[in-house]
Amino acid sequence: MANQAIVHASELLTGAGIRVKDGRHVAEEDLGRIKDGALVYSVTRTGREIEWVGPTAKLPKKFARAKKVDLKGLRAVVPGFVDCHTHLVFAGDRSDEFALRCGGVSYEEIAARGGGILTTVRATREASIAELEKLAIARVKESESYGVRTLEIKSGYGLSFEAELKVLQVIARLKKRFPEMTFRSTFLGAHDFPKDRTREEYLSDLLDKMLPEVTRRKLADACDIFVDQGFYTLEEAKLVLARARELGLAVKMHADELVNTESAALAADLNCLSADHLLKISDRGIAKLASSNTVAVLLPGTAFYLKAPHAPARKLIQAGACVALSTDFNPGTCMTLNLPAVMTIAALYLGMTRAEILAAVTYNAAKALGLHDRKGTLEPGLDADFTILPFARFEEAYYRFAW
Amino acid sequence: MANQAIVHASELLTGAGIRVKDGRHVAEEDLGRIKDGALVYSVTRTGREIEWVGPTAKLPKKFARAKKVDLKGLRAVVPGFVDCHTHLVFAGDRSDEFALRCGGVSYEEIAARGGGILTTVRATREASIAELEKLAIARVKESESYGVRTLEIKSGYGLSFEAELKVLQVIARLKKRFPEMTFRSTFLGAHDFPKDRTREEYLSDLLDKMLPEVTRRKLADACDIFVDQGFYTLEEAKLVLARARELGLAVKMHADELVNTESAALAADLNCLSADHLLKISDRGIAKLASSNTVAVLLPGTAFYLKAPHAPARKLIQAGACVALSTDFNPGTCMTLNLPAVMTIAALYLGMTRAEILAAVTYNAAKALGLHDRKGTLEPGLDADFTILPFARFEEAYYRFAW
Repeated sequence: MANQAIVHASELLTGAGIRVKDGRHVAEEDLGRIKDGALVYSVTRTGREIEWVGPTAKLPKKFARAKKVDLKGLRAVVPGFVDCHTHLVFAGDRSDEFALRCGGVSYEEIAARGGGILTTVRATREASIAELEKLAIARVKESESYGVRTLEIKSGYGLSFEAELKVLQVIARLKKRFPEMTFRSTFLGAHDFPKDRTREEYLSDLLDKMLPEVTRRKLADACDIFVDQGFYTLEEAKLVLARARELGLAVKMHADELVNTESAALAADLNCLSADHLLKISDRGIAKLASSNTVAVLLPGTAFYLKAPHAPARKLIQAGACVALSTDFNPGTCMTLNLPAVMTIAALYLGMTRAEILAAVTYNAAKALGLHDRKGTLEPGLDADFTILPFARFEEAYYRFAW
Repeated sequence: MANQAIVHASELLTGAGIRVKDGRHVAEEDLGRIKDGALVYSVTRTGREIEWVGPTAKLPKKFARAKKVDLKGLRAVVPGFVDCHTHLVFAGDRSDEFALRCGGVSYEEIAARGGGILTTVRATREASIAELEKLAIARVKESESYGVRTLEIKSGYGLSFEAELKVLQVIARLKKRFPEMTFRSTFLGAHDFPKDRTREEYLSDLLDKMLPEVTRRKLADACDIFVDQGFYTLEEAKLVLARARELGLAVKMHADELVNTESAALAADLNCLSADHLLKISDRGIAKLASSNTVAVLLPGTAFYLKAPHAPARKLIQAGACVALSTDFNPGTCMTLNLPAVMTIAALYLGMTRAEILAAVTYNAAKALGLHDRKGTLEPGLDADFTILPFARFEEAYYRFAW
């Protein structure tokens, strides 16, 4: 069959057991590891669908004529990595600020020298769509080089009607530019408050201008909000996310990062797709997430960058939460797109097992984007969305650090 | 002039001040940062030598016809990175052990399942020279992709006369295979004790068989020893390093890593090129290093992997020690060749400034290999040994993490 292709892997991890358990309490056997495995998929008009998965030795004869995909050596094949939380579109360079901060200069002094998030907002507002797109294209390519097949991108460095729409348009262009990848666009106008509007004015911009226009133009798949001390309150989150949902968007939340505001619990109550960060989550928040469909998205690269205590991953996992990992790529607190490096940090510092890590960057991360119906595991009938690792075994992807 | 070439950089860091200060107490101005800088070098029979360095605007007319090196965009040019402490030649795969350890399995259990350094020794002994070389070539290429121009490689996973010589022969082959890079080969037969010899037998092998043969065949530039609790004693180090020096080798030491044995102080007393690790160095050791010519080589990627407290970098720097940074690439405690990622860890967790970091991966690391007479800074008369960063500014090399 001309439209069928076959992949022969040194090992194939289907992750089938992860789906059965909805990404909770996963264990070794859920990896679905097949030594010398084969995966057959067919190319249809709408995409690539898996036809068969199993040991090469048991490959049905009817697939004998499928076109072989050359993996260039002994390669492990796993469900496509999903980076479910990034702020990939922004302009400006904050390397100087980082060097100063590491060298002992205080936040106050850096702010006085013009550093911080507003540097990024200023540069992003000033940049043209073409300039932002050029920066973003290089970043998407880099992300792809780490095995990422699905990428969520948030707006949030515009903080004005025009600039937020501009960023979302860049994401729309990326979707066209990289048809082999899957993108999810998240409107994060509620990332911070801009300095040129009062709180009330900006909230009304969000509710009455930005959200309606963003949805009218189909520029976002979801809406996110940064709930924390000094940022958005629980009440404001309820307002913004209710409006977003009314307009047809899925909802997400930056929760319990800097201080505990019980925002993770609210995210669960609001049935958010995900509650992200969770460095300061309470036991109540953990219990709420565990008994909800809201994915707990952990971002240990950010804790590493902030030198902050890590999120209570083991407590979340033991409670039965569906835990995902992501880079949080952003210019202020985590300047990396290297999802496997984040997996290494998670293994070492969150004490996650190989099954928990695979689930966290595949099925669970896909669930955090509402894409788990067709992605996240390699099984017949699902999308043939897989990552070919440059290694013979899956574990090498995070045992090797920062490749 | 046909044998002259010119490099135009968005910024050029000469590091000239670092050399003036011998890499101690370096500060911002020692970076020698030249915006829109030019570097002219001539190709001679023995290598590439710098003719001129300065702002493009001041380029002397006589270099107008030099061949332009295309940097493919706005690129920062810095002295060539030196990775001065790696264990790059070994066989075997310990990713399973790493995953088990991170997932909470104890060292004892892992050892019982056949893990640990002896796994690597077994695989390295069993591998052919060609197999080891193939593995090493891929690793050298990866190291080069991070901007490393000089690479030190230690033996030490053979732990027998034949296997140590085999590993050193692989390093000799790499020197031929990558003429554009500089290699330093370090004999680390005293990495551990093998299980198939008594301590006395192995020590006598080291002193009377291995060291003489290694030097006779010119297979090493230096000799290193792992001094720590459960490994080599201070007295044994004196014996081994005295013999090495007698045979014409430079000497180095793994010092004060697991416990404080005052080995750093001994390294300074013995005028070692470097004392490496130093997680447990005492104030006395710090003072000794500061007043010696022995470079303090810090390996924060290893502390990150071991989840151990970091070396007292600020104390060493403030005392006036010459501090270098390196990957320590090895299969047990730091499976990365990404020197810039180690720079990020050093910035965040050792609190190093940009000048300290640049010095640590250039001049100071070259000094740890005895190569600082011709490498480590970009000045007329020195080797034209530079790194072209894929960024416009030097700081981006470590602000961006794990690229």
